[in-house]
Amino acid sequence: MPHRVSYRVYYEDTDSLGVVYYANYFKFFERGRTEYLAAHGQDVAELNRAGVLVVVHSLTATFRKSARLGEMLDVVTGFEVKSPFRGRFAQRIERDGELVVEASVDVACLNPEQRLIELPASVRALTDS
Amino acid sequence: MPHRVSYRVYYEDTDSLGVVYYANYFKFFERGRTEYLAAHGQDVAELNRAGVLVVVHSLTATFRKSARLGEMLDVVTGFEVKSPFRGRFAQRIERDGELVVEASVDVACLNPEQRLIELPASVRALTDS
Amino acid sequence: MPHRVSYRVYYEDTDSLGVVYYANYFKFFERGRTEYLAAHGQDVAELNRAGVLVVVHSLTATFRKSARLGEMLDVVTGFEVKSPFRGRFAQRIERDGELVVEASVDVACLNPEQRLIELPASVRALTDS
Amino acid sequence: MPHRVSYRVYYEDTDSLGVVYYANYFKFFERGRTEYLAAHGQDVAELNRAGVLVVVHSLTATFRKSARLGEMLDVVTGFEVKSPFRGRFAQRIERDGELVVEASVDVACLNPEQRLIELPASVRALTDS
Repeated sequence: MPHRVSYRVYYEDTDSLGVVYYANYFKFFERGRTEYLAAHGQDVAELNRAGVLVVVHSLTATFRKSARLGEMLDVVTGFEVKSPFRGRFAQRIERDGELVVEASVDVACLNPEQRLIELPASVRALTDS
Repeated sequence: MPHRVSYRVYYEDTDSLGVVYYANYFKFFERGRTEYLAAHGQDVAELNRAGVLVVVHSLTATFRKSARLGEMLDVVTGFEVKSPFRGRFAQRIERDGELVVEASVDVACLNPEQRLIELPASVRALTDS
Repeated sequence: MPHRVSYRVYYEDTDSLGVVYYANYFKFFERGRTEYLAAHGQDVAELNRAGVLVVVHSLTATFRKSARLGEMLDVVTGFEVKSPFRGRFAQRIERDGELVVEASVDVACLNPEQRLIELPASVRALTDS
Repeated sequence: MPHRVSYRVYYEDTDSLGVVYYANYFKFFERGRTEYLAAHGQDVAELNRAGVLVVVHSLTATFRKSARLGEMLDVVTGFEVKSPFRGRFAQRIERDGELVVEASVDVACLNPEQRLIELPASVRALTDS
């Protein structure tokens, strides 16, 4: 089962077209990934202190609908290990069950010297089932 | 009794000094004002549709402590009507009861033509007692 | 020839990993698209006033390197009309000629009622040659 | 003579009221302080690497006018040393010579352990005359 977490749209998220600014959806997606990991016992700040930096390597996103001030958005997040070095988050933002934005976000892990390292065993063990 | 609402600190809120970026605290304060108003029956998006734009006229803020990734911050918000045209939010951000940032935020209301108008009666009726 | 415009990295762009936050690169890309259009006689604010909202429909991005506080980043932007309803920006962010992030951003046009409309003739006429 | 630097308003800066979001003006002010310091030989990233973190301690701001998408804003910055531990930036944002926002921003310096330290001699030597 994918993980769900909800956030209200505030002024900070909107732009002068009256809708959520496209770059800000990536903040919602990152909140969803952080809460997914926390729900699975992986604290991002602790991983950092342990020398593991989870970073976005690549992503695709499709914007289906516009969200507006005051609306509640659900961030839905699933995760799949693609290789020892790569994980993929399948994410979508919904409003009352309607798809607003969907994204596929590939992450990798760096050490503090910005060198690629394997995903920690605790992350490689994650499955959504 | 002042209103309280809590938010986690995400990457989006931090900067390269490892702490919450000063301008981003004003997003937390604005979330607190929006939720304060909602808790008192005043929906900001509905006020906008009714032609009432609540805007910040002036503010002061003092930054006491630094907040960091993953921490939970409480936004504490009180409100006082200062005149028919001016309301003042007394706000602070706390972490486990410790003061992080405090602010005093004066707001006014504009009509869609950006002219100053009186605070709506429903807002002038607000008190924290 | 693709269009180039440069911006410095400020604190607002960074996060607690000490690098530019991934979502903020999309602000740089949007600045690049706006300046590309301006350089070709298309003012985004004027298009809005004329009832033409240029919005992002979908995108892909790959993050190759990390950028840091104080660095100058070049946003390089090309444009191609894909259909009467769709344009594609090929964009990259460079630092001293080194690729930092690359993106492909598909845009469409909406009218003020959020209905899909054709790209304006002035936009369909754009080529980078 | 105060220091001046100009920036265009992009979508990222605006909100659904059609104007620049109040918290985002503090990004403009911080850009102005960074460029003021750079113009006076003080590179913020280098100061950080030398263990000097310039942070905002307190501020006041008054919002006089609204700025909109596509407008050019001038950030005007002056600086005054108030004590060995405190500097004050007097800043304003102008549009075609008209005052939009004015702010007074007090800064202090921390070491990497977040302890208050004196302003570096190079900063204490700054004057606008």
